[in-house]
Amino acid sequence: MQSYGHIPEATVARLPIYLRALVDLASTGASTISSEELAELSGVNAPKLRKDLSYLGTYGTRGVGYDIDYLRFEVSSALGLGNTWPVVVCGFGNLGRALANHTGFTQRGFPILAAIDTDPTKIGHTFDGVPVHAPGEMPAVVTGHGIAIGVICTPVGASQGAADRLVAAGVRSILSFSPIVLTVPDDVDLRSVDLSTQLQILGFHLQESADDE
Amino acid sequence: MQSYGHIPEATVARLPIYLRALVDLASTGASTISSEELAELSGVNAPKLRKDLSYLGTYGTRGVGYDIDYLRFEVSSALGLGNTWPVVVCGFGNLGRALANHTGFTQRGFPILAAIDTDPTKIGHTFDGVPVHAPGEMPAVVTGHGIAIGVICTPVGASQGAADRLVAAGVRSILSFSPIVLTVPDDVDLRSVDLSTQLQILGFHLQESADDE
Repeated sequence: MQSYGHIPEATVARLPIYLRALVDLASTGASTISSEELAELSGVNAPKLRKDLSYLGTYGTRGVGYDIDYLRFEVSSALGLGNTWPVVVCGFGNLGRALANHTGFTQRGFPILAAIDTDPTKIGHTFDGVPVHAPGEMPAVVTGHGIAIGVICTPVGASQGAADRLVAAGVRSILSFSPIVLTVPDDVDLRSVDLSTQLQILGFHLQESADDE
Repeated sequence: MQSYGHIPEATVARLPIYLRALVDLASTGASTISSEELAELSGVNAPKLRKDLSYLGTYGTRGVGYDIDYLRFEVSSALGLGNTWPVVVCGFGNLGRALANHTGFTQRGFPILAAIDTDPTKIGHTFDGVPVHAPGEMPAVVTGHGIAIGVICTPVGASQGAADRLVAAGVRSILSFSPIVLTVPDDVDLRSVDLSTQLQILGFHLQESADDE
């Protein structure tokens, strides 16, 4: 697999945004796009976009722009999306099941192969193609499925325990939907999604408008 | 209500992160924090944090740091969190219901007062305290509840239609969980959450580690 030099973290965070725009563009039948247009679709300025893509060794052609399919391949490769990273979901309530039904995860190389839940009516059963196991089965689930990533969708009070069990079972990449800050060892890559952050930004704009009136 | 000068969009996007750190800190019983510590908890560098907070007219005390409760009040006020912005959820499947059960929304001033769904077995019933209405009832729902924000949790194919109905009913702030790009008029504030973005960043780091081995 191609090896990239160091890509800055802020660039890494924008690559999924570019990829999403490129996938949308490809679905419209377009074959090339200018850096200005792609930048606008992605909500960044064009010099920043060009700089970001230069880390991938990718440069547009003057007067033509970028080849959409090729750029999509390059960004996907940089993101490791040629690979498959099996996922276990901890907490198989509404949010966990919503993620299991989210076709985008499997398409992007993150198949949800198992779930962990404490509900005895769920354990041992399969929902939406995902088998549900008891918390004590975590080590066997991680080893058996070659789990690379754990996603935490439990109620708040159970989220630190879920993180601890993932870490103990050897999982080193965790995505948390818990609204509290979780504690993990330094060698664990923990990322959080706070579902209310974007709502708060909308609220800020609403208040600005209200203040103007 | 206090009026703020222009706050840069990038600063606005970081305010919820600071607020989250401050709420966690307050729960530990701490009363003050240095800009360096708060910056580290928030994942930014200290000069950026101080600059961001200076837009709120808030400066720490040298050698003491920031008063956590006061800073929390300031950041909340800037985010308009003293206000309440009623929310309608479009699509009341697993994701919509997960949001309705997410206590953080109501706590932060975003109560989910109604849902819209096409499923006749849901319409007319109340789940988790949220009444479900048919798509045609959107205008009455928006007017009746004073809806400020619409959240789109429908299947992909229905998401543009949901956006169109929200806009037609007068909603000017939309949060979309759809993986496709939605089209709305320029005066509509549309923000998107792509649930797989953070997974893709984890995947990038996993690949980097694999390349190093």
